Amino acid sequence: MAAAPAKSAPIEQIVTPWQATNSGGGFDYQKLIKQFGSTAIDGDLIRRIELATNVPAHRFLRRGLFFSQRDIAQWLDSFEHGEEVYLYTGRGPTSEAMHLGHMVPIEFTKYLQDAFDAILVVQMSDDEKYYFKDDGHSIEHYQRLGRENARDMIARGFRLNKTYIFSNAAEVAGEMQLNVVRMMRATTGNQIKGIFGLSTEDNNIGEIAWPIYQSVPAYSSSFPHLFGKRKVGCLVPMAIDQDPYFRLARDFVTTGPGRGLLKPAAIHSEFLTGLSGAGDKMSSSVTDAHLKSIFLSDKPAEIKSKITKYAFSGGGATLKEHQERGALLEVDVPFQYLLYFLEDDVELERIATEYGQGRMKTSEIKAMMVNTVVSFVEDHQRNKALVTDAVVDAFFSKSREFDHGRTTRTALVPRPAAEYDKLGANFDRYFGQAKPHLMSAPPV
Amino acid sequence: MAAAPAKSAPIEQIVTPWQATNSGGGFDYQKLIKQFGSTAIDGDLIRRIELATNVPAHRFLRRGLFFSQRDIAQWLDSFEHGEEVYLYTGRGPTSEAMHLGHMVPIEFTKYLQDAFDAILVVQMSDDEKYYFKDDGHSIEHYQRLGRENARDMIARGFRLNKTYIFSNAAEVAGEMQLNVVRMMRATTGNQIKGIFGLSTEDNNIGEIAWPIYQSVPAYSSSFPHLFGKRKVGCLVPMAIDQDPYFRLARDFVTTGPGRGLLKPAAIHSEFLTGLSGAGDKMSSSVTDAHLKSIFLSDKPAEIKSKITKYAFSGGGATLKEHQERGALLEVDVPFQYLLYFLEDDVELERIATEYGQGRMKTSEIKAMMVNTVVSFVEDHQRNKALVTDAVVDAFFSKSREFDHGRTTRTALVPRPAAEYDKLGANFDRYFGQAKPHLMSAPPV
Repeated sequence: MAAAPAKSAPIEQIVTPWQATNSGGGFDYQKLIKQFGSTAIDGDLIRRIELATNVPAHRFLRRGLFFSQRDIAQWLDSFEHGEEVYLYTGRGPTSEAMHLGHMVPIEFTKYLQDAFDAILVVQMSDDEKYYFKDDGHSIEHYQRLGRENARDMIARGFRLNKTYIFSNAAEVAGEMQLNVVRMMRATTGNQIKGIFGLSTEDNNIGEIAWPIYQSVPAYSSSFPHLFGKRKVGCLVPMAIDQDPYFRLARDFVTTGPGRGLLKPAAIHSEFLTGLSGAGDKMSSSVTDAHLKSIFLSDKPAEIKSKITKYAFSGGGATLKEHQERGALLEVDVPFQYLLYFLEDDVELERIATEYGQGRMKTSEIKAMMVNTVVSFVEDHQRNKALVTDAVVDAFFSKSREFDHGRTTRTALVPRPAAEYDKLGANFDRYFGQAKPHLMSAPPV
Repeated sequence: MAAAPAKSAPIEQIVTPWQATNSGGGFDYQKLIKQFGSTAIDGDLIRRIELATNVPAHRFLRRGLFFSQRDIAQWLDSFEHGEEVYLYTGRGPTSEAMHLGHMVPIEFTKYLQDAFDAILVVQMSDDEKYYFKDDGHSIEHYQRLGRENARDMIARGFRLNKTYIFSNAAEVAGEMQLNVVRMMRATTGNQIKGIFGLSTEDNNIGEIAWPIYQSVPAYSSSFPHLFGKRKVGCLVPMAIDQDPYFRLARDFVTTGPGRGLLKPAAIHSEFLTGLSGAGDKMSSSVTDAHLKSIFLSDKPAEIKSKITKYAFSGGGATLKEHQERGALLEVDVPFQYLLYFLEDDVELERIATEYGQGRMKTSEIKAMMVNTVVSFVEDHQRNKALVTDAVVDAFFSKSREFDHGRTTRTALVPRPAAEYDKLGANFDRYFGQAKPHLMSAPPV
């Protein structure tokens, strides 16, 4: 068994929709739960989700990578009562090159759509990127990126007749714009300043108004072409840095013009670390971090080379040391990636034991990471090649039939109670701690 | 001839889109021209407009009531070169009851549409009123008022196949929203603060963003269903308090994302005074001012009673005094209203002389005002009765044919040069001053 990691200094972390950094000790997600006032996901909740859907929980859920939520119980109530529910996620198109980290919420949303047979709305926040990026690009540039990113999303297998993707810059109108108007009326510059840390004086008007636009798709009345006048509960899967938007969206429901709307539920993920393991979010824009990210367009040889070169190892400095003390799984980047992308629980358990106790070598776990990631990326590229312009157009189209039906599934046999106790965010079977987070890792 | 009015203290005036008040001396419009940096309208310009359109100038133009402009020469250049031009005006729907003052820009816009055969776009700024009014009404309330106010506008005879009216709250989308996005990107909270005096912290986000929404219809690219990709010059007729919006709209054309757009031209009117003659704008919301406004829905007897009771008179205090010194036309409310609403120049000239020299009595000019206003309002009510819901729907519809053609007219014989010298804002034939404005008038 690996030695307990050295006690590190308290972690300094900043998590906002535009910044997610820490002082080098990785993120303290338990602290974020406290700070944001959300709720940890435990085995009981996972059990409930499995039995409600008759679909095994996604590995992100089983392994506590989606670790926090707000009001998901109410949303599940609706689902269990046979009422329609829907999902909302978004994508800020900053680059054509999406990386593996971007796939985390997308993969999870795909699971949610399948498990809950739910309509999914996807906001391509081209306007957000245009407001917040300082690179001189036109709004059309970001709209084009939005379409390209949609292609990557569609490649993950979202169901056309249950999915509506929209460009926020041009398509917000009608009932959705009315919700924007109501919410703009109810929100002062000071509130935006308080929740998002934006300067109402120096930030541009688009930036100041943006939180409203990201919030309104969480109300079903924004989509009359999907839901008519029915009130449909919304669940928003997201990385935890997006939570402030939905605090705003939830608060609005308690004020005058928002009364009568349903409070959106939320489910939050951790951040997939970059290869250097410093704990920062994987990045598609910062040059150095860019080198250390794996892109969905990377060739197998590139992936192999990046992992070999940059993936931070928690293994011992020498073979002898490694065999004696074992690997520190908490800081080991290959293990983190297997946690996200290796489906097989038994195999993951075996790796945790073998590698953690120094019997598996760093080169071996790196090779496993290469295999797992290459296979994911190759699969993605094959699927993406099938997503023609016509397919993208179809996903963006409003005037078509949507399928609101539910699949009838064979009842799932629940896992033994003891197994549920080991799932989710409250217990970490691999790290022997309350909550896994990457430890201080020197830059590679 | 009337005695020269006593020299009054310098006029303190505040003119913003949300407030137009003065210290009681009436507005100093020459000062506004200087302050705003616009250009006075003179006889030469009126001559040019008459000869370009082959339509006699509207009385508001002849009499200097539309007194200021920006870049109308370039807009006329386009028109004279046979290029298409368009008009943009708006209406903030605060109440079902529109008053006579609201009709001034509308009447003038109707003249411009006819004279220039131009497409007209009308923004019903229901969202603006929702943001800025603190009366607890819903956005739907203001949308309903917008439709009702549109009925009053349509009753003035705008041409269906050249007029597009839109509810801003719900219908801004597509290319217009893209212009909103570009302009939001280019405008900081500080600029909004500077130009409009809004507090970016305490005002709501709708208020802070509103100036962008009022600006963008001044770019033809906001209306692809009307103009396709053609660049069409825009002229915005408005009361001068709306000018700040178009300073913003004009500035944007010189910055990055606005480059390539045409600078909108502007033409500004004075304010029609309330019956008390204090010089404040006629009002549909403040209770006292409300009593002293004439509404388009008033019955003849109400109009007569309001004028008799409240219309401030510039006549002498006694018949003897009146006959000796004559009336002060500058402060006389009945004369002001005849200036706006009596079409006959010869008759107006006669009244100015007879009343100004004390031979016509206050009761006589008040009776003329009653006749003129009642006839205007009765005519309006007759026309409005014909504007059914279906007609309103038609004006709001996007999917129909618009007429971009021009009428061929018989060449207009220009007026003698000396007559042009007497027209417009630079010379006031009635008041013998550089610029008419209402003098200090005690409340009635």
